[in-house]
Parts: sequence; structure tokens; C-alpha cells
Amino acid sequence: MAFVYKGEPRRGAIWAAQFAQKMPQLAFRTWPDIGDASQVRFLAAWQPPERIAEALPNLEILFSVGAGVDQFDLSGLPGQLRVVRMVEPGLVTCMTEYVAWAALSLHREAPLYLRQQRGSEWKEHPVRPASTRRVGVMGMGTLGRAALAQLRQLGFDCAGWNRSRRNEPGVRCYAGKAELKEFLARTDILVCLLPLTAETRGILERRVFDALPEGAALINAGRGGHLVEADLLAALDGGRLSAAILDVCEPEPLPRGHAFWDHPRIWLTPHVASATQAESAADALLDNLRRHEAGLPLEGLVDRSRGY
Amino acid sequence: MAFVYKGEPRRGAIWAAQFAQKMPQLAFRTWPDIGDASQVRFLAAWQPPERIAEALPNLEILFSVGAGVDQFDLSGLPGQLRVVRMVEPGLVTCMTEYVAWAALSLHREAPLYLRQQRGSEWKEHPVRPASTRRVGVMGMGTLGRAALAQLRQLGFDCAGWNRSRRNEPGVRCYAGKAELKEFLARTDILVCLLPLTAETRGILERRVFDALPEGAALINAGRGGHLVEADLLAALDGGRLSAAILDVCEPEPLPRGHAFWDHPRIWLTPHVASATQAESAADALLDNLRRHEAGLPLEGLVDRSRGY
Repeated sequence: MAFVYKGEPRRGAIWAAQFAQKMPQLAFRTWPDIGDASQVRFLAAWQPPERIAEALPNLEILFSVGAGVDQFDLSGLPGQLRVVRMVEPGLVTCMTEYVAWAALSLHREAPLYLRQQRGSEWKEHPVRPASTRRVGVMGMGTLGRAALAQLRQLGFDCAGWNRSRRNEPGVRCYAGKAELKEFLARTDILVCLLPLTAETRGILERRVFDALPEGAALINAGRGGHLVEADLLAALDGGRLSAAILDVCEPEPLPRGHAFWDHPRIWLTPHVASATQAESAADALLDNLRRHEAGLPLEGLVDRSRGY
Repeated sequence: MAFVYKGEPRRGAIWAAQFAQKMPQLAFRTWPDIGDASQVRFLAAWQPPERIAEALPNLEILFSVGAGVDQFDLSGLPGQLRVVRMVEPGLVTCMTEYVAWAALSLHREAPLYLRQQRGSEWKEHPVRPASTRRVGVMGMGTLGRAALAQLRQLGFDCAGWNRSRRNEPGVRCYAGKAELKEFLARTDILVCLLPLTAETRGILERRVFDALPEGAALINAGRGGHLVEADLLAALDGGRLSAAILDVCEPEPLPRGHAFWDHPRIWLTPHVASATQAESAADALLDNLRRHEAGLPLEGLVDRSRGY
């Protein structure tokens, strides 16, 4: 029985050592040195090999090394293969920090002050506490709920929106398309942490921006595919939105010459909002393997019809 | 008996209404319409009038409208006059938010990513959680302790340094000149929240920067007078420090043509880290007036020999 890792080598070395120590009975192999392919029951990868059913005929679980599985062609995977998102505390912690940073940056008008600095302009704007700023998080999964808890602790007035109804202490919760407009109308800083699915692709578009209060701001730490780029540019240039902080785009890297690079109201980070932390992720994987052996439900198991 | 306010009109209007409602027996006057000067026992100001002993012969308390009193010429004030710093929750909350924002910005290398963006460069650097980042706060008064509590909650590895010994849960505490070097050696992000006194003027200088780990970063939300500007520029340009976020400088506004405006590793904000919040500050003032009437110790009473 073997576990194959196909990905970034530094993480692979850490996982190999952790697996050897904590689950020595399972052979840990690093792609492409997989040994006897018929022995491979588990694969952790950002991108699986092509023709996976032929390459790894006895594969039981495909683990994504990241929080999303939108990089997988789910329809092209064998029907019985279980697909699992990465749910591990290091990834949640780093995303929470990023959202806290981005929300505070917009709340404290850092993009405006940086523009002023570049123009040698010393001009104060009123200082107001976070309790007067309404943040709304789209997507109340593991990442969204953790971000909301941190935003609340920082004093923001928080709401969440989710496809299905969720409850979160101290957070006004909205559900489904029917309540989207009401959620947007009370959101000064909109945070996207949705999974990318057929349903959420292009969700950040003109009608959403138009439903936000004048001068609202956007944080996209979901996927580039959530955003209709032309609509964002129009909303920023028309003054509807005041600023955007984007960690993701499509494609990545953002092409040279793209309007986002030089836009005075856009801050870009190169898909570094969070990253699977090798040590804590190894424990999460091992824990899921033990659950699998014991016939217990897997953490982060993907509903393939839903897409996440 | 009268209270005189000398300062920004918007705040004055809010205070006048609050005082009229909550302490109607005390006449609230707004500079320069002070009525009978001999009746004035309390003054709230950023800068008191000249020749204060003659102008307001029966003045008992001078309240600063800000957190500091370094703008007062303490030696020129009448000896019996009590001087009080502003201690009010709104000011503490906003400063805490600013320090959280600035520390997260440096932790997540936002100045580096913004420089990359301006060069159309998409380049990831390792993502690590706040628990691996050591923040050190100089000055453990009301603002410093509140900032430390928030930084701890965000997961940072925290230490504090203070002139006299302080204790703060979960924070490694250092005291006095003897322990400064040890404090600096374990500090990746240095935050200055000291009061400006003869003793602390120019404290952020070459020897301090040299004692920090290579690549450390600075946040100055204290006073411009704490910083030796030439030493900061040398530390940034020599690579000793990676970045600085400065809310204060000397003089303010920063003069045109100053090297800080265009420096790629300096983020400037125009003294907006925090501001006295009119509503909560009115309550804090009224509370202190009641304490004074009752003969109780005043919140924020300045030790004039110490300078804060």
C-alpha cells in the first residue's frame, strides 16, 4: 500500500519524514518514483497525472494539496475516486491573517494614503473605529467562518453570505440568491472566499458592485474566475468602488500589460493569501488516512456534483 | 465655574452637547468666547493660550485633547496646574487597529508586494503564520498594552519594553536600558508607542537598528521626535531594515522634497494612527471631572518631572 505525493519538493521532504515517523506501515513515494503503480491507493497533488485511471488503477483517494479543487477536471476523474480538499489549521490561520490585513487596509484607507504619499500629499481623513465599518464575507466554509471570527474580534460589524443557510455567532447571516442583494446593501468591505464552481464563476460582476454602497471596497481571496475583470475596472473608474485587494486572477501569473498592474486603486498579491503549511498539513492528511481506515467520514470530502 | 475648549470645532460641538446634557451645572465655553476668565477652572486644548497664568488665573486642570502632552511646554506652565493626558477608549481602539494593520502589513510583506506590483512582477515569497513573527512594542502604557493584547490575539510572538518593569500576560517583558539590547535582538517588527520626553527623543537610532535582526521592520506610531531620520534611511538603504511604516514625523506635515515621500521601503500615513473620538472622550473627560470633584486620582495625570 502506497501514498504518492506529486508537488513542490520542499513540502514533499517534510511530508516524507512525517509519514515515515507517524505511519511507517504506509510507503511514501514522491512522483515520478512511484514504484509499483498497482500499490498506490492515495495521491496528494495540485494536478493529478493524465489518464489517472490507467496510471494508478487502484487509487482510492485524491487529496488536493490546496484548499480548492477547482484545478481538477472533476468530470474527467474516475467515478468511484474520492476527492478531498485540504482542510488544515495552518492554511486557515494564514488566510485569516490575510483577510484581517486586507480588511484593515481598506478600513484604514491604506490605498488612499499610499496614493497621497506618491503625490507628496499630507492630508488626514477622519479616523473611525472598525465598529463603524461593515464587512461582508461571501462563502462561510472553514475559511470564511474563521475569517469572520477574526474580523469580529477586530471590532468590525460582520455579515456572511452562503449558498445554504449558516449560523455564526455575532454575524448576520444571509443565504442564497434571494438574500444576496440585502447582504450587499449593508457591506462596505466585500470579501470573497467562495469555492470556484460553475455556479460561482463570474459572481463578482456589475450587478453585485452596483448593489454595494457607494465607495465600498473588494477583497478577492477566492479564485480569479470569480471576478469579471472589466466590471471591476468600470466600478473602480466610475467611483462606485473605492479600492480592491486581489490575491487571485485568471490566468496566473497576471499577464504583462494587464490593466490591474498599474491601477491606482488595485493592490495585487501573487496568490499568497494562504498556503498549505507542510507540518500541520501532514498531520491533517495522516488523520484523514486514519479516518479512512476506520471507515469514518473524511474531512474535506468533495461532493462532486456540487463541485466543492 | 467654567470649562473651556480650545480646538477643532466639530469635536467642540459634540462636547458642548454632551456636557450640557450630562453636567449642566458646569458652563461649557468654546475658545475664544470664554466669558469671565476668572471663572475658568478647566481647559481642554491641543495648545493652551500664551501666558496662561494671566489669561486663566484660576485654572486647575489642563486637559490635552490627545494622547500625548509633548506639544505642551511643561516647564512654562504654572507649577500648581495639573496636566492630564487623554485616556479614552476610542483613541485606544483606533491605535490598536492601526498597529494591527501595520504589523500585519509588514508580516505579510505588503510593501514588498506593492513594489513588485509596480514592476509588473508576479513572485511568491513563502507564507508563514504570525506565530513565527516576533513583534516588540516599546512603551507599555495604555496604548502599548492594548496593542500587545491585539497582536497576541492575532498570533504574533510578542514582547514589550518599558522604562519601568511591567507585566503583561503572554508577553515577554523587558525593562530599562539594561534590557533594551536583548529585547531588540528578538524583535522582527519593532513598534514605537513611547511618550516623547527628553529621555526618549531620538531613541530610534543607529544602535537600535543595528541591534535588531537583519531584515527587521519598524512601525513608528509614537512621535516624529523619536526617530533619527538619517539613521533610518541608512538602515533601509543598507539592507539592515526591510521596511518602515511611519505615522509621525518632525515637523508635520513632512516637508516637500523630503526623502521619506518617495522612499520605496517607507509607507507614510499623515498622523492618523488614532484620534480622540469625540463621543467617548466626552465621557472620559466628564468622568475625570467627577473624580476631581470627589478628590479621587485623575486618569492620565501627568508626572511633570517625568514628562508624561
